[in-house]
Amino acid sequence: MRMKTRAAVAFEAKKPLEIVEVDLEGPKAGEVLVEIMATGICHTDAYTLDGFDSEGIFPSILGHEGAGIVREVGPGVTSVKPGDHVIPLYTPECRQCKSCLSGKTNLCTAIRATQGKGLMPDGTTRFSYKGQPIFHYMGCSTFSNFTVLPEIAVAKIREDAPFDKSCYIGCGVTTGVGAVVKTAKVTPGSNVIVFGLGGIGLNVIQGARLVGADMIVGVDINDDKEEWGRRFGMTHFVNPAKVEGDIVQHLVELTDGGADYTFDCTGNTGVMRTALEACHRGWGESIIIGVAEAGKEISTRPFQLVTGRVWKGSAFGGAKGRTDVPKIVDWYMNGKIEIDAMITHVLDLEEINKGFDLMHAGESIRSVVVY
Amino acid sequence: MRMKTRAAVAFEAKKPLEIVEVDLEGPKAGEVLVEIMATGICHTDAYTLDGFDSEGIFPSILGHEGAGIVREVGPGVTSVKPGDHVIPLYTPECRQCKSCLSGKTNLCTAIRATQGKGLMPDGTTRFSYKGQPIFHYMGCSTFSNFTVLPEIAVAKIREDAPFDKSCYIGCGVTTGVGAVVKTAKVTPGSNVIVFGLGGIGLNVIQGARLVGADMIVGVDINDDKEEWGRRFGMTHFVNPAKVEGDIVQHLVELTDGGADYTFDCTGNTGVMRTALEACHRGWGESIIIGVAEAGKEISTRPFQLVTGRVWKGSAFGGAKGRTDVPKIVDWYMNGKIEIDAMITHVLDLEEINKGFDLMHAGESIRSVVVY
Repeated sequence: MRMKTRAAVAFEAKKPLEIVEVDLEGPKAGEVLVEIMATGICHTDAYTLDGFDSEGIFPSILGHEGAGIVREVGPGVTSVKPGDHVIPLYTPECRQCKSCLSGKTNLCTAIRATQGKGLMPDGTTRFSYKGQPIFHYMGCSTFSNFTVLPEIAVAKIREDAPFDKSCYIGCGVTTGVGAVVKTAKVTPGSNVIVFGLGGIGLNVIQGARLVGADMIVGVDINDDKEEWGRRFGMTHFVNPAKVEGDIVQHLVELTDGGADYTFDCTGNTGVMRTALEACHRGWGESIIIGVAEAGKEISTRPFQLVTGRVWKGSAFGGAKGRTDVPKIVDWYMNGKIEIDAMITHVLDLEEINKGFDLMHAGESIRSVVVY
Repeated sequence: MRMKTRAAVAFEAKKPLEIVEVDLEGPKAGEVLVEIMATGICHTDAYTLDGFDSEGIFPSILGHEGAGIVREVGPGVTSVKPGDHVIPLYTPECRQCKSCLSGKTNLCTAIRATQGKGLMPDGTTRFSYKGQPIFHYMGCSTFSNFTVLPEIAVAKIREDAPFDKSCYIGCGVTTGVGAVVKTAKVTPGSNVIVFGLGGIGLNVIQGARLVGADMIVGVDINDDKEEWGRRFGMTHFVNPAKVEGDIVQHLVELTDGGADYTFDCTGNTGVMRTALEACHRGWGESIIIGVAEAGKEISTRPFQLVTGRVWKGSAFGGAKGRTDVPKIVDWYMNGKIEIDAMITHVLDLEEINKGFDLMHAGESIRSVVVY
């Protein structure tokens, strides 16, 4: 069924989104039509819109952090039905590919090739505007009131979860909390250092609180972040600009030999090195969450690893979308994690460019568009 | 009890060792006197002797890969007695320090500070020559027929193990086999790539065979190493000099998406990067064993880690000396691992400089000095 839907279209890089009515084809086999009820605006959307992603495709409909309701399913769809509440998954979970079956990663490869090209798995796009194709983005395109997704790319969630909060679980919450719980598997009593206290950093902090960490050290060059960090469980705050001498040594002393786990939430490769080297000799693990600028590399002396530090990364918090995302929604509904206070701005779709402005200005933790 | 013992002394860097009679003081509290019966000559000894180790101390008695018999114990020693067969441990195991008690590392810190200065834990040296102090090396100094060691730095082993083979467990065997078994915890059916087929690489290969790996790929620029690799379980050989195009892509294709585990046994930081990037997306782990030149750094794009590869290192194979080394001796005696074929040369102490020459010329896997 072909339909029209309101959407914020990125016609080209470095230009504001335009709110227009686009054409949307109905779901094909294995696909579902979802009415997006709310969507967060994430730095990754801005990264693409600002032209930093060399693989960014335009014109496209950005947005990858949504929540909504299934309105129609294509042939062969069995796991969801119209009326189900879902969160779109930019990291799908087919449960059939080598990666899914490995049990060792959440990085399902079933539709990776087409998703990276802004296309549905059959190699075509469902969106068009004035007869010209509009590309999908991260397999989600939640900046459209209605979107089409592969069945393997939606997580069915409980119906009492509010869309304007649960949408944040579609990216930021899961990325931060998951990095702690799934990737690092932080144990109770651990000492943790979190670099960068934006939305991801705050979710790492509350993840560390959830699993019973002892010291939760937040590091940020902006003193205003201290209050935010403490709000979600941070026990110590360090502003590197105000530390005399070496920041690594300062953090190692603060944590009595180094942290058990460190998390980079900055995307800065220099900070990533600091995060590794602030780990405890013998066992400290550093997890890279931040996305670095194209071409930037991380470096360290191999001695750092030979003496027991471990360097790893996390994508979508190591969470399997259909399996773990519904559990994280439960954690929110049961009060084990917080979201409400992180949603600093609620906007109409018409105000979406303002959401990007707020983010660039550092004035929001998370802006959410409610349809 | 003061005594005299024959030893090969490194009076200064970049000069041959000199075989002389040195004075040795008897064991103080918590120390043991060990008669070294055999010692391997390891690249690390050469690294120090050749002046590459900026923290190398002279004059000293090198050697850290030995086996021998306890001849005398100082006050308070309870875990070994005269007559016990032991392997000296450059990585001791005090079972009391934060590192030992963590259960997460073998890097005991009890005597690290003094060991690094060439001294016994009380801050003095037991060796002297013509009244001048001679420093200890890596806490072992196995290039002396008799040596004094802290009690926590000897592993008691079974008495039927031949010294001229079990000495190799004091470093090379444990470093390679342990990296597979203890650090990486390679699982049966895994695909493994080993970079550098010297003694450590061969021990990684036989470790991978021991735990039931499927593919065991050896990588070396010297075709002569292929026969050696296959001798210990290598299933595929790759000479990067003969690969057209990118070596990473070649290895990823050979292993159907990348290796589950890779091991760098070269000390070359460029190879360390190749080893990481040849890991499977989502879960591949790369373990650095080789010691890099001073000042050299490892680098990669953080995307390699964010997409699931893990970078770690291994020292002394992650093995706890007093706990694990006796088990590895058992593995050898029970035929689970091989050593005999790796001992390519047996020398007298007077021939020790020839052993270094053979190593530098790449003509030995392991030379062992038998006293």
